[in-house]
Amino acid sequence: MHRFLDLADFSRDDIVALLELARRLETHPEPRALAGRILGLVFFNPSLRTLASFQAGMARLGGSSFVITPGQGTWQLETRLGAIMDGAAAEHVREGLPVLASYCDALGIRAFAEGRDLAADLAETRFAAMAEVIDKPLLNLESAMNHPCQALADWKTMDDLAVPQHGKFVLSWVSHPRALPLAVPAAAVHMAAMRGMEVVVLRPEGYALPPAIIAKARAAADAAGGSVRETSERDDALAGAHVLYAKEWGSTTHYGDAEGDAKLRAKLADWCVTPDWFGRADPACRFMHCLPVRRNVAVTDAVLDGPRSIVQREAYNRMTAQMAVLHRMLS
Amino acid sequence: MHRFLDLADFSRDDIVALLELARRLETHPEPRALAGRILGLVFFNPSLRTLASFQAGMARLGGSSFVITPGQGTWQLETRLGAIMDGAAAEHVREGLPVLASYCDALGIRAFAEGRDLAADLAETRFAAMAEVIDKPLLNLESAMNHPCQALADWKTMDDLAVPQHGKFVLSWVSHPRALPLAVPAAAVHMAAMRGMEVVVLRPEGYALPPAIIAKARAAADAAGGSVRETSERDDALAGAHVLYAKEWGSTTHYGDAEGDAKLRAKLADWCVTPDWFGRADPACRFMHCLPVRRNVAVTDAVLDGPRSIVQREAYNRMTAQMAVLHRMLS
Amino acid sequence: MHRFLDLADFSRDDIVALLELARRLETHPEPRALAGRILGLVFFNPSLRTLASFQAGMARLGGSSFVITPGQGTWQLETRLGAIMDGAAAEHVREGLPVLASYCDALGIRAFAEGRDLAADLAETRFAAMAEVIDKPLLNLESAMNHPCQALADWKTMDDLAVPQHGKFVLSWVSHPRALPLAVPAAAVHMAAMRGMEVVVLRPEGYALPPAIIAKARAAADAAGGSVRETSERDDALAGAHVLYAKEWGSTTHYGDAEGDAKLRAKLADWCVTPDWFGRADPACRFMHCLPVRRNVAVTDAVLDGPRSIVQREAYNRMTAQMAVLHRMLS
Repeated sequence: MHRFLDLADFSRDDIVALLELARRLETHPEPRALAGRILGLVFFNPSLRTLASFQAGMARLGGSSFVITPGQGTWQLETRLGAIMDGAAAEHVREGLPVLASYCDALGIRAFAEGRDLAADLAETRFAAMAEVIDKPLLNLESAMNHPCQALADWKTMDDLAVPQHGKFVLSWVSHPRALPLAVPAAAVHMAAMRGMEVVVLRPEGYALPPAIIAKARAAADAAGGSVRETSERDDALAGAHVLYAKEWGSTTHYGDAEGDAKLRAKLADWCVTPDWFGRADPACRFMHCLPVRRNVAVTDAVLDGPRSIVQREAYNRMTAQMAVLHRMLS
Repeated sequence: MHRFLDLADFSRDDIVALLELARRLETHPEPRALAGRILGLVFFNPSLRTLASFQAGMARLGGSSFVITPGQGTWQLETRLGAIMDGAAAEHVREGLPVLASYCDALGIRAFAEGRDLAADLAETRFAAMAEVIDKPLLNLESAMNHPCQALADWKTMDDLAVPQHGKFVLSWVSHPRALPLAVPAAAVHMAAMRGMEVVVLRPEGYALPPAIIAKARAAADAAGGSVRETSERDDALAGAHVLYAKEWGSTTHYGDAEGDAKLRAKLADWCVTPDWFGRADPACRFMHCLPVRRNVAVTDAVLDGPRSIVQREAYNRMTAQMAVLHRMLS
Repeated sequence: MHRFLDLADFSRDDIVALLELARRLETHPEPRALAGRILGLVFFNPSLRTLASFQAGMARLGGSSFVITPGQGTWQLETRLGAIMDGAAAEHVREGLPVLASYCDALGIRAFAEGRDLAADLAETRFAAMAEVIDKPLLNLESAMNHPCQALADWKTMDDLAVPQHGKFVLSWVSHPRALPLAVPAAAVHMAAMRGMEVVVLRPEGYALPPAIIAKARAAADAAGGSVRETSERDDALAGAHVLYAKEWGSTTHYGDAEGDAKLRAKLADWCVTPDWFGRADPACRFMHCLPVRRNVAVTDAVLDGPRSIVQREAYNRMTAQMAVLHRMLS
């Protein structure tokens, strides 16, 4: 495996095999598998789970890692092609990233959406411009519209807890003080579709996922015996649900328009998951969230601390799933 | 050993055995003892010695570590229970810390006193709320009222340099531009009492240590054949002293009141240790300080660079003492 | 090797042997050579290549490293002797650095020029004050007037690409929004002189290198059969050049005078390397730059992305050259 950028780049069988490897490494650790191997991690945006789980995962496989955080300990990096660099950025990614890649055996990059132009973010222009100059194995640690490590961890978590393969997966928009990127909702919908689930995207008006995201997920669902639909009716969405996957994201009708988005979300404070959301769900329905999550804004303490919540397992599986990816890439 | 939070959680014999292990690891290194083991380090407050000594100590035992600094590379973490998280913090410690713990074999946390409510800080409410959600081995890297790693290093330093077991240990308040936490003075007094020393706390009016700290240290002193008393008389305190341990801390009569504290300390600039402080002390009297220290504010260059100063040995022993703790916890 | 602070501290044969070791480690890796060894890295100034290449290099030799960044995760460190430390710095380098050195087997320090007093910077007063208190192997990660790791990497890069030993090496000043330190130009000139090259420093009026730098390089050139001269005539300088090494630096006639420097450089925007600079150069002339570089300010995209550019190789050789230094110091 040379690149891990999008679950859609792999067949369903590839992913199932990767998850099998993740489980094997859990029960049969290989503490020397990546001895002498080095992972470079570049964070254009903050991180907690990704930073810690990759560093710990490399160490558990006997490898090492280093961390570069542009703008903090390192100068800012320019990403625009052809820029006259007389501003704040002292170095261009076209030099900086190949240099870092030359020191390591695989490079991971986190670069969130710019959040101004939906078409540009959907095209992953920023991440693609970086990926283009790197000739080493490359990992997407969250880009504008993708977060394959999170998606893989979520899939494994559902397998671990025996969520039915063709069960009902409800991705629900939840409240947040600001517009957040579409990377996790896009990745979660695709993952659940690829797993073969009945995927329902529950969101208020103004927050529909971009048609390109839905179309891509539908293609995956078709191949796996699942389905994808959107609704703003909570009761309908949650009836019989096996998973409620909560996530915050920005308005797609007001993309890049913070004020317009703020007006919409001012009326949506009741999109905070409470125990009664599960009234019509399957009795075993699980609550998922990729974290970080704002308590009592996106979800109440009662749900997050209650028996349905599997958010800790999801976070733990970031490490186990990524260890499989690293093992496949570097051993 | 599952937790290393407070010397008072251990018997004197336990601590003596731990120091024996520290000495053994100095003379007989075990470079593979913690192979494959991972230490997570979380710093809510700045660090130099703690960060470097733990990373180096783990590496010397063959293990690895990762570092998380909330608010820097990672978002801020909320600590209040039941908070409606619509402010700056994007994640609650109730999620963030168990997640980090799930990636590692032991977790260390630094979280200074909040410095507003003395009772809350004495009760370690902030640290306790974090410790409660962590099921992995846990290390206190300095909490509101404790710094057991420093205390252990200081004990070892006195043993290394043959400071008499029942010698006179003078903890003296010294000058600083601002009120600092009580963690180190509380830990130092307890450590010296537990070692069996004649402990004298020398401080100006308004800076008496909290009665709960003194009472706890006295119980340790009683068990070890030592004693604890407070005074504001420098000559009396230092007469015959074997150790002068200088430390800065905030007024306890004006706790959380920066203005009131500043008024008091404005008159205390002469609480800066000079060579003549040692006039009536034991000829072999040592100068100790946990560092960082402000030269020519808390202590003059002449003392810090002079032959009595053992601050470098204390700092070096952070690593040797912590290696014993890590070895006991994780090997 | 106890210290690696300046190429001038070594004979030409020493450096040639070090480069031979670097090449040997490239073809015959020694993944356990520094097992159990720890490198401490202290960055008073930002870093990308240095941080990543040293961490990766140590890991490739089986060792470990830790990073301390004063003012970021750690408080600021005072460097002035005799200071009354009632300002922002909480600790003095006279304590902090020996403490860090006591945790590791070698310490690397980056501390740029202060940029106020040329004589003080030429005397390396800041770095020397730090080096003086450290008794462990010490590496200069860029000081006021030196960057020996960069120089060694550049030498190796020219060897790798068969640049003639006595070829013409043109160090050219190039445009930048601000005055930058003299460390890299000083180190590059010395390195090329020591390699035996015909060194020409091409720079506008006001940007001549300090006589002490030139004199030191000339001594090295004399011993190696090379030469050193300065000019402001571009055509003359570049005629027959085998290497154009571009670098930004501040005015030496207006050292520490940002306003005076800015007035001078306002008229120098055409000191941006374009393809036609190579018109009279040797057909195989290479373009070198230590990075980071501002595209289309110091050099155009066409040159940097063109076939003459060997900046990636230079950056990669930071790691290979430093691995030889670390191996010589610590194995």
